[in-house]
Amino acid sequence: MVSQDMLRLGQQSSVIRAISEYGAARRAQIGAENVFDFSLGNPSIPAPEALTERLIRALQEEHPCRVHGYTSSAGDMGTRGAVCEHIERTFGFEADPKLVYMTCGAAASLTVAFHALLLEGEKVVVPAPFFPEYRVFVEKAGGVLCPVPSLEPSFQIDLDAMAAAIDEKTKIVLLNSPNNPTGAVYSRETLEKLCALLREKEKEYGTEIFLLADEPYRELCYGGASPAWLPSLYDRTLVAYSYSKSLSLPGERIGYLLVSPRMEKAAEVFAAVCGAGRSLGFVCAPSLWQLVLKDCQGMTSDVSEYERNRDTLFHSLSEMGYTVTPPDGAFYLFVKSLEEDAGAFCERAKKYELLLVPSDSFGVKGYVRIAYCTDPETIEKSLPAFRALYEEYRK
Amino acid sequence: MVSQDMLRLGQQSSVIRAISEYGAARRAQIGAENVFDFSLGNPSIPAPEALTERLIRALQEEHPCRVHGYTSSAGDMGTRGAVCEHIERTFGFEADPKLVYMTCGAAASLTVAFHALLLEGEKVVVPAPFFPEYRVFVEKAGGVLCPVPSLEPSFQIDLDAMAAAIDEKTKIVLLNSPNNPTGAVYSRETLEKLCALLREKEKEYGTEIFLLADEPYRELCYGGASPAWLPSLYDRTLVAYSYSKSLSLPGERIGYLLVSPRMEKAAEVFAAVCGAGRSLGFVCAPSLWQLVLKDCQGMTSDVSEYERNRDTLFHSLSEMGYTVTPPDGAFYLFVKSLEEDAGAFCERAKKYELLLVPSDSFGVKGYVRIAYCTDPETIEKSLPAFRALYEEYRK
Repeated sequence: MVSQDMLRLGQQSSVIRAISEYGAARRAQIGAENVFDFSLGNPSIPAPEALTERLIRALQEEHPCRVHGYTSSAGDMGTRGAVCEHIERTFGFEADPKLVYMTCGAAASLTVAFHALLLEGEKVVVPAPFFPEYRVFVEKAGGVLCPVPSLEPSFQIDLDAMAAAIDEKTKIVLLNSPNNPTGAVYSRETLEKLCALLREKEKEYGTEIFLLADEPYRELCYGGASPAWLPSLYDRTLVAYSYSKSLSLPGERIGYLLVSPRMEKAAEVFAAVCGAGRSLGFVCAPSLWQLVLKDCQGMTSDVSEYERNRDTLFHSLSEMGYTVTPPDGAFYLFVKSLEEDAGAFCERAKKYELLLVPSDSFGVKGYVRIAYCTDPETIEKSLPAFRALYEEYRK
Repeated sequence: MVSQDMLRLGQQSSVIRAISEYGAARRAQIGAENVFDFSLGNPSIPAPEALTERLIRALQEEHPCRVHGYTSSAGDMGTRGAVCEHIERTFGFEADPKLVYMTCGAAASLTVAFHALLLEGEKVVVPAPFFPEYRVFVEKAGGVLCPVPSLEPSFQIDLDAMAAAIDEKTKIVLLNSPNNPTGAVYSRETLEKLCALLREKEKEYGTEIFLLADEPYRELCYGGASPAWLPSLYDRTLVAYSYSKSLSLPGERIGYLLVSPRMEKAAEVFAAVCGAGRSLGFVCAPSLWQLVLKDCQGMTSDVSEYERNRDTLFHSLSEMGYTVTPPDGAFYLFVKSLEEDAGAFCERAKKYELLLVPSDSFGVKGYVRIAYCTDPETIEKSLPAFRALYEEYRK
């Protein structure tokens, strides 16, 4: 008799993965060039050559015991220092290397934060739609996820709804901007109001509310959009970061969790983070990556291809008549389903070999997510299919 | 108010780390060549050149999106197949790639197993002494660690004591052979008897007892010792493996958890493993390492240096008069303290610049652990200090 919760999680194939597996089967049947698979958020742009060169140099020139040895559990102090210098250069914010915990990627950044902060039954409030694994991570840490619908069609945060949802059991407000799945970048004005609201609620309930910024898409912004640096707006902020998207390294599992030095008892919060990492089995973040990223702060893959894909899809689909959320960041387009049931819409799209993800598992109904981290040719070739799908609904 | 359990874990510096930090400070004061630091189990032998070459080739020749992309959560099927082929060649045991879960190292292999298998309050029985983090991992998963003293001075398993400890709440028996900290390799005969005992206990209580083999030191065996392959002896076995020690990659976090295909409902156990990995935030094991290790199964660092260190220390210390456990594997020597309180003995050893770890945190009193994964010169130069320490106690 194994753990039934873990068994259920292991047996549930995620909706996204199921569609992606259908795509693989379909490619085998009719050829990859005939399938328009927009299901997975797997970066399509290669890691920068300069990064590859730095990796090779580390392997050729440095002693293997230094390259592959344990770092301290929280990470190499040189790397943590470089992270802080980059943050200072970019946001004019003084971070503290002693409060940066290097992690095995964004998922680890999040689970470590949840296990460090949450007491049994405490709430994590998150604007919907949201990345479905949030629920899995929060519940494993003993917390309760409370999604709060966002404003449509902008998918900006609904401040009134947030005010109604935050109560005395709320320990964390979790934000993901640029957002998966909508591509929305929360406006600075909204975020300032939200932070003021959190301070009010803390006072009202005599509690501490932490802001947890999940920012793997921070560098993927288009048309001048730029996500605000939350630690400058709210003292009790933690930032979960990953190099998966900005450097196209999703399989390598490298990121960090930053505790703002401006929060009260920051050292204690950081110690709890270290304790959580230790107890979950994260001994240290991969050492080769820590070594190399010390010298590669601020480097990104050439994300201009994503921007071209986004422009093509956004303008073409809008022109055809689809309702599309303005996609300011990440590599997702959020489009209104042409019938109430987004699942049924996605099934119909399959007839045109269009593989889209219904929004239901992201906590909102009636939309589909289009992951446009794919080659531009696929985008171009998919347009007639999108048009035909739209025409079918007009009949 | 953060999680008090996590805070406590983060604030407790481990005894081993405290000694190692003292060593770093001492080296700065009196020079590295004058400090005999035997505290940490950090491999001192470099990773094999062939492995480095394979890494560089992957980076130079393969597409970065393939090298650094997500693998499936359980790992690349090619890598899992290579692991199984190596197991079949080495142990004549037919493993199943569909039941191999690639992990971020041994600690992750263990936490994933504990979270998959344990229900609240169930027991994990482990022969003492044992790796101290076992307790942290088991308790985080809701279990209770039950150490069972081993036979002295061989530190083989005490079967009568195990029989007395295993009850109807026992879900897992956890074995670590070659053993940290004793260096003991459990004999085949003992293990066969233990497995027979587990089958009896299962029948007696109508329960399922899993054997979890923690085997990061499997390839580090000396003088003809060879650890038995437990899945051949007991069907309900899981093997937690890491490449940290055999390939000198402790910082890279790469290993696997194998579910024996011979156990009942193996697919269900494996699904629970996947669910645990998912919920703890292990998305996939680092992809570059998965790719490279597909071609490097059976490769090891040149561990003959460890064997030379072991021979020098074992024979020299025995000759001086110390009582030393026969060290058949790993890179640890377990030596009887010259006074009852091993902590006090270690303090006195510091006068001679010898940094040893008292056995108390491993769950047994009156011994010290000497990690001999260090350069042979340090070993040679430390011998007069060990002799002087012994002489001091003879006075």
